[in-house]
Amino acid sequence: MSSSTKYDLVVIGGGPAGYAAAIRAGQLGKKVACVEQERPGGTCLNWGCIPSKALLKSAEFYNKLKHSEDLGITVKGVDYDFSKIIGRSRDVADTMAKGIGFLFKKNKVDHVIGTGTVSVPGMVEITDGKDKGKILAAEKILIATGCKPRRLPDLDVDGERVMTSRQALAMKKQPKSVVIVGAGAIGAEFAYFLNAFGTKVTLVEMLDQVLPVEDHEAAAVVEKSFKKDGIDCRTSTAVENIKVNPKSVKMDLVKDGKKESITAESILLAIGVVANTENLLSPRVKLKLDRGYISVDDNYESSVKGIYAAGDIIGPPWLAHVATYEAIQAVNGMFGEGKPQRVTDFPGCTYCLPQVASIGKTEKKLKEEGVDFKVGKFPFQASGKAVASNQSEGFVKLLVDKKYGEILGAHIVGADATEMIAEYGLGMKLEATAEEIHNTIHAHPTMSEAMMEAAAAVFGEAIHI
Amino acid sequence: MSSSTKYDLVVIGGGPAGYAAAIRAGQLGKKVACVEQERPGGTCLNWGCIPSKALLKSAEFYNKLKHSEDLGITVKGVDYDFSKIIGRSRDVADTMAKGIGFLFKKNKVDHVIGTGTVSVPGMVEITDGKDKGKILAAEKILIATGCKPRRLPDLDVDGERVMTSRQALAMKKQPKSVVIVGAGAIGAEFAYFLNAFGTKVTLVEMLDQVLPVEDHEAAAVVEKSFKKDGIDCRTSTAVENIKVNPKSVKMDLVKDGKKESITAESILLAIGVVANTENLLSPRVKLKLDRGYISVDDNYESSVKGIYAAGDIIGPPWLAHVATYEAIQAVNGMFGEGKPQRVTDFPGCTYCLPQVASIGKTEKKLKEEGVDFKVGKFPFQASGKAVASNQSEGFVKLLVDKKYGEILGAHIVGADATEMIAEYGLGMKLEATAEEIHNTIHAHPTMSEAMMEAAAAVFGEAIHI
Repeated sequence: MSSSTKYDLVVIGGGPAGYAAAIRAGQLGKKVACVEQERPGGTCLNWGCIPSKALLKSAEFYNKLKHSEDLGITVKGVDYDFSKIIGRSRDVADTMAKGIGFLFKKNKVDHVIGTGTVSVPGMVEITDGKDKGKILAAEKILIATGCKPRRLPDLDVDGERVMTSRQALAMKKQPKSVVIVGAGAIGAEFAYFLNAFGTKVTLVEMLDQVLPVEDHEAAAVVEKSFKKDGIDCRTSTAVENIKVNPKSVKMDLVKDGKKESITAESILLAIGVVANTENLLSPRVKLKLDRGYISVDDNYESSVKGIYAAGDIIGPPWLAHVATYEAIQAVNGMFGEGKPQRVTDFPGCTYCLPQVASIGKTEKKLKEEGVDFKVGKFPFQASGKAVASNQSEGFVKLLVDKKYGEILGAHIVGADATEMIAEYGLGMKLEATAEEIHNTIHAHPTMSEAMMEAAAAVFGEAIHI
Repeated sequence: MSSSTKYDLVVIGGGPAGYAAAIRAGQLGKKVACVEQERPGGTCLNWGCIPSKALLKSAEFYNKLKHSEDLGITVKGVDYDFSKIIGRSRDVADTMAKGIGFLFKKNKVDHVIGTGTVSVPGMVEITDGKDKGKILAAEKILIATGCKPRRLPDLDVDGERVMTSRQALAMKKQPKSVVIVGAGAIGAEFAYFLNAFGTKVTLVEMLDQVLPVEDHEAAAVVEKSFKKDGIDCRTSTAVENIKVNPKSVKMDLVKDGKKESITAESILLAIGVVANTENLLSPRVKLKLDRGYISVDDNYESSVKGIYAAGDIIGPPWLAHVATYEAIQAVNGMFGEGKPQRVTDFPGCTYCLPQVASIGKTEKKLKEEGVDFKVGKFPFQASGKAVASNQSEGFVKLLVDKKYGEILGAHIVGADATEMIAEYGLGMKLEATAEEIHNTIHAHPTMSEAMMEAAAAVFGEAIHI
């Protein structure tokens, strides 16, 4: 790349927003660079969604081994190798990251390694890392630097006593006990994973349910299952006075004003994320921010012309699939491929077992908003496939507009929930009614029939309940 | 029930068409009887879809145990109890059948036990079984007697040397070797099940691929996987000269005019079905038939007014979910709940591993019809969730109309295929385009993202390939 190279697009950040944007621009024949400090893939691929799913697969299988006799199968001498489990999850991340590297080449994306700083509009300087000193001229800039795990003030993350998800994904040693702070998707997934392999897990949540953003009934199914599996779930509970000792961490759990002292080998912080804006902008570039996130207009353009942003860096919901969507929309828009769409409905998933998947609003939210809605609910206990597969925990719950039957929200808890939600996602995209879903032939026997039965239940027409 | 009772509806047959029809009529407040020789549930629930899925669950788990080290887990002393595996599948069928019994009570459906014969229009006589001699007066009659496995002439089904799926689902002893005749869904599922537990399986198919109704590429993935697992797959092969000996069955496999003699402990016939019309109609009732199946009009009414038919008894595709749909449509129509819909698109599933699920037309069919179409294909190897879950075999293939992008067919082979197909099913119902599916945010990381990527691939816009 000569110093006179001018890029059509320079993307800063190589995660699900950044790499997708770069590849999409490449597909459009644009000259594009993707600036990333590490290998491509971002948090999601390297330190989030993907390696955690590998760990959960091992945990799920290990848990199922405990019930193999249900299926007429006996096993003796079950054991696991924690370092192999972590190792496989790293291998999976490696494989997928190499895949992105290959896609960069295929789509002629220049991967520039280092910290990208917007010096002035139209110019990105590499201020740190392998390619430090390089200056990239850019017709357009897309900021997709994402977020990183939130930490607590005055609490060093040493990767052993104190971890965030990033360190936890590369744990060298399985802790005998852990307090997980935050019972959102990340906290719940680590709780399921570590508990499966015998770590004593205390899962602490400030709000009044595990998975606080999910439907309360779905969350209750998970909490009940977690408790049955031996996870100590503490909701409406705060963590205070954390003291890190050489071999343990001591803290107070505070509920209703009552303090309880607890000691564990490690503490894992799963308390949300903060925007990656460090060294992103030179003092000459002033972008409008909103609570630390970059404000963008309907075209994903920031307050400075030619500088766009997409993904976690523009704020919640901090989900990889939303980030990818936004980034592609932004790129399409900037290169004249149609009017970019902003995100309205998106699925959210938690991959412990039972899985939770949802889209749209919760019952509680609809009630708060005073919306007139109807509920259709179908339990997996009444599903032949669920019973035959020995996985009849959970339900499908569909919330529809009372007048037209349009889907307002859907909540699934149970095995396969995270795959099943795709149908309701398409349904919401196409403004499908409960009646249309009810009248769609679903394969028998599948778990997904519950999606149709829940729609039928809205009208009292479910066959199997 | 007094002799003067007149039913609004008498349903003959208690399978997925019959029981659904009876429950639906009950929901509508109709006085309804369901005549069934055995307990409710029909072939599907008692001797088909449901118990076979229980067996497959055991087989799938047992097969996965062989690869547990991939997940960092070691097991020793793996064993299975064949009678327990069969026993669990019978228990599952029992549970679900009891459920239908409960639903009959809840919806005030009279379960009449025996063979129902239509004496004259408006009258059903119980000509055999527990309630023999009862006569039911009926405003309307719905025939939903379904089908039973096809047999071969001059070959007694003794349940040990010679079986159909019905006997195979209650096998007392695992055969050391078996020849399965017919590699459709049923044959393929039994092949997968028995092979998993070490039976030497020869799977013979007259046509030129396993799963002959499926997309040729999807079938090829299954055949390759079957062969790798040790199943001897013989396509374009006929079975001749079957000789049953006390301890074995001997036969010729004929391919390209060449004969090969083969001996196995058992033979399993999976060669389709024939209509259950025995003792169904008195000689006074003459319904128009088509190749043995009852002909119906758009309202599911037969050639005799007041006698309706739905499900397998009206002909292919012989699928439980199609049968249920037809039956509900028929009942809605006969009681003024809207114009009944006839079936256009429906999913078809095979539950071995890799699973196969499809809807609409195959590539081959579209070519034969001279339709202008485009293909979008996405391999699970490029899916982060598939790789993280150690299940990256297979692909999603979407066939769309060249002009408008409307879905003409979809073919999925791989883990979770049978759940994923639901989304495309809704898509076809709503006449969604590939572009709409491409633009629907799918949760990351899920297998279902492949559905979106296949849609994107139609336009060369898939991100991950």
